[in-house]
Amino acid sequence: MTHDLNETQDPELRSWVESANEEGSDFPIQNLPYGVFRLRGSSQRARVGVAIGDQILDIDRCREQGALSSAAAEAAAACRQSSLNALMALGKEHWTALRAALSGLLAAGDHRHKATAAALVPMSEAEMQMPAQIGDYTDFYCSLHHATNVGSMFRPDNPLLPNYKHIPIGYHGRSSSIVPSGAPVRRPLGQTKADDAEAPSFGPSKLLDYEMEVGFFIGPGNDLGEAWAVEEAEERIFGFCLVNDWSARDIQKWEYQPLGPFLAKSFQTTVSPWVVTAEALAPFRVPAFERDEDDPQPLPHLESGDNRAHGGIDMTVEVHLQTEKMREDDVEAQRLSRGNFRDMYWTAAQMVSHHASNGCNLQPGDLMASGTVSGPEKDARGCLLELTWRGSEPIELPGGEVRRFLADGDEVTMRGSCEREGAARIGFGECRGVVGPAREP
Amino acid sequence: MTHDLNETQDPELRSWVESANEEGSDFPIQNLPYGVFRLRGSSQRARVGVAIGDQILDIDRCREQGALSSAAAEAAAACRQSSLNALMALGKEHWTALRAALSGLLAAGDHRHKATAAALVPMSEAEMQMPAQIGDYTDFYCSLHHATNVGSMFRPDNPLLPNYKHIPIGYHGRSSSIVPSGAPVRRPLGQTKADDAEAPSFGPSKLLDYEMEVGFFIGPGNDLGEAWAVEEAEERIFGFCLVNDWSARDIQKWEYQPLGPFLAKSFQTTVSPWVVTAEALAPFRVPAFERDEDDPQPLPHLESGDNRAHGGIDMTVEVHLQTEKMREDDVEAQRLSRGNFRDMYWTAAQMVSHHASNGCNLQPGDLMASGTVSGPEKDARGCLLELTWRGSEPIELPGGEVRRFLADGDEVTMRGSCEREGAARIGFGECRGVVGPAREP
Repeated sequence: MTHDLNETQDPELRSWVESANEEGSDFPIQNLPYGVFRLRGSSQRARVGVAIGDQILDIDRCREQGALSSAAAEAAAACRQSSLNALMALGKEHWTALRAALSGLLAAGDHRHKATAAALVPMSEAEMQMPAQIGDYTDFYCSLHHATNVGSMFRPDNPLLPNYKHIPIGYHGRSSSIVPSGAPVRRPLGQTKADDAEAPSFGPSKLLDYEMEVGFFIGPGNDLGEAWAVEEAEERIFGFCLVNDWSARDIQKWEYQPLGPFLAKSFQTTVSPWVVTAEALAPFRVPAFERDEDDPQPLPHLESGDNRAHGGIDMTVEVHLQTEKMREDDVEAQRLSRGNFRDMYWTAAQMVSHHASNGCNLQPGDLMASGTVSGPEKDARGCLLELTWRGSEPIELPGGEVRRFLADGDEVTMRGSCEREGAARIGFGECRGVVGPAREP
Repeated sequence: MTHDLNETQDPELRSWVESANEEGSDFPIQNLPYGVFRLRGSSQRARVGVAIGDQILDIDRCREQGALSSAAAEAAAACRQSSLNALMALGKEHWTALRAALSGLLAAGDHRHKATAAALVPMSEAEMQMPAQIGDYTDFYCSLHHATNVGSMFRPDNPLLPNYKHIPIGYHGRSSSIVPSGAPVRRPLGQTKADDAEAPSFGPSKLLDYEMEVGFFIGPGNDLGEAWAVEEAEERIFGFCLVNDWSARDIQKWEYQPLGPFLAKSFQTTVSPWVVTAEALAPFRVPAFERDEDDPQPLPHLESGDNRAHGGIDMTVEVHLQTEKMREDDVEAQRLSRGNFRDMYWTAAQMVSHHASNGCNLQPGDLMASGTVSGPEKDARGCLLELTWRGSEPIELPGGEVRRFLADGDEVTMRGSCEREGAARIGFGECRGVVGPAREP
């Protein structure tokens, strides 16, 4: 059975893994996101797999079975480790070959399906790990709506700084404290100073927030001193995930000048474990953010016709909250917001191109995050700081609770998906964390 | 021959490696800094060694020869890789055992010296590598003099922000672009906007600068969510090096608000390759920075009697410049500044303790840098931005050249040393780089 790239995106294509064909599945055969899993209770090393319905296909086992063509086998050999870094390093040609091969193996009617089924692991028996060893993590700030909202709270007279529309603003984040979805979140302690306090004090953050972001992983890197035009940057993006950039707003406010956020963010960052490939998202490409007529045009190294026409991704992102009381009362999580990644002022490729423009070497497995995805509507705001306007407009929850910021026991779940007429739905799985109490100071 | 810690710091102790005993040597037997080297022209893996005079002792070869006691052999076994990370992870007890054993092997009169000599490699035949695989790099901003000088240039009405005397201000840096001394430096390109320009433009930085900093490597890490009091933080510091935090001031000025420096710094950072251990620096401990009477006291988790009494290190740091023309004319490098690490407002242990205070997990091999080491005197300013007061007071060089910022061909060499009556001189070697032209845009 031959199988080419166009077929892997055919919305009619179905899998013999029946759960993949169910309506609303995050992981149909058109998705095939990569992740790293460990069998629950097993001492085996963590392994690379792709999600298909409610199953995970163990790529190394497929390779061992000789089920892959030589081009795909080379890519699959890069999956013989406990991270996606080596696969990311190979580049687009290999990614395409492996994707086509896996799609072929999983397609309804494939004659090898009995052998392939032996390489399936139910998701319920797997614990997802970090998808990559992240060397460096960079967090951008690329929603004009978010930057304007937050800026107007912190600098009412000067909400949007003069550089904003010229540069994809970003800063280096902390890579060691990035954890996969489901890992517990500990409320951080830190130094804060209330407006009316004479001196700062040290204790648990009182203004804990989430930030709904979209992350993307770098594939083949550049040498130190080299750079990428925006078209080349696009080719280097392996795939996308969801990122919760947990933020302690009281720590942030006191520490962030003049060098930016530090301990307000570095206590933890949560990512969804499945990396949805750039290829799977191809049907959802949309034009880059439409700038106002009087907005500056991007400088030439950050611009291309392709980027203008297809640099955006039409991807819905949602945040859901369930408090401890809601769990006890069996009340389902409440959706707090729904935004869209296409509303970012800069595209992912522009962020990557900007990052490498000074010669900074990006490496396979490096993670970038977009910054909070907020849209123009109030219910498209991607953090509580914006949703409750710094706590002045509390959110009412079912059961009578209110939230200005997060309370201990709160579970924050982020979801993302791409949907449109004539294309299979692509889901991102979950990015989830429950806030636990701070340690004793 | 027994050999204990006190002996390793005895200033009278001499080595049978004669070059270690020469006056002014950076690497007497009391120093024994660790580094990673590769034999020039060899395909062998890079190896861990200690510097002794003009030689490097290959630790794995000593271990193979059975020359080490069991406690030291365990630490030496951690040196069987191409980085110091595993040794750093072991902790103080092992560091002490290995140091004592190596000091014993290298001490004048040691009966094993013929066998040990076979494990020596001349420095002239070695190429120094990065000492550690740096997971995360954090750059602080802990010189009150530097912060006040720079602040008064960027914010004349508000030079020192209200948080400065309460928090060791820091930010996440880029780890991928950290290179060892000697690696070429490429002038970065970037987006800048002149004050009188209507719009920004993209091109080579015109205001390239160095920053003279002191770096320190983390030993055993903390778990996510845990923290260290300042005394414990002190125990976790493996050792120190020199850091040149190359900075493009024009890129920095345009990009740094609101999230801090990003591409102005991430194009490259240079470190000296020899890590001088905390133990070797013990004789040079001095009280922490003496605060003014009306300065706030550090919050309790950042303070201890020991830190007040011994948190500082009396370490001289110097910056030397040699232009291309000076090299051609055989004019030796000119010293631009001489500062002292004891002039930092916060101690290294306070920076580490602050970093972990929110539960951020620090890991073996993580690098922290102090921020520019500037003192109260003009010739103790650790970067050109301060020395030339933003270019308004150019430096005159021998031969008639002047410098406001760095020109292509300029070689910047940093050196550090600890000296006092009754103690052997401890040197840091060099942190060196030559600025090359920017790539074609």
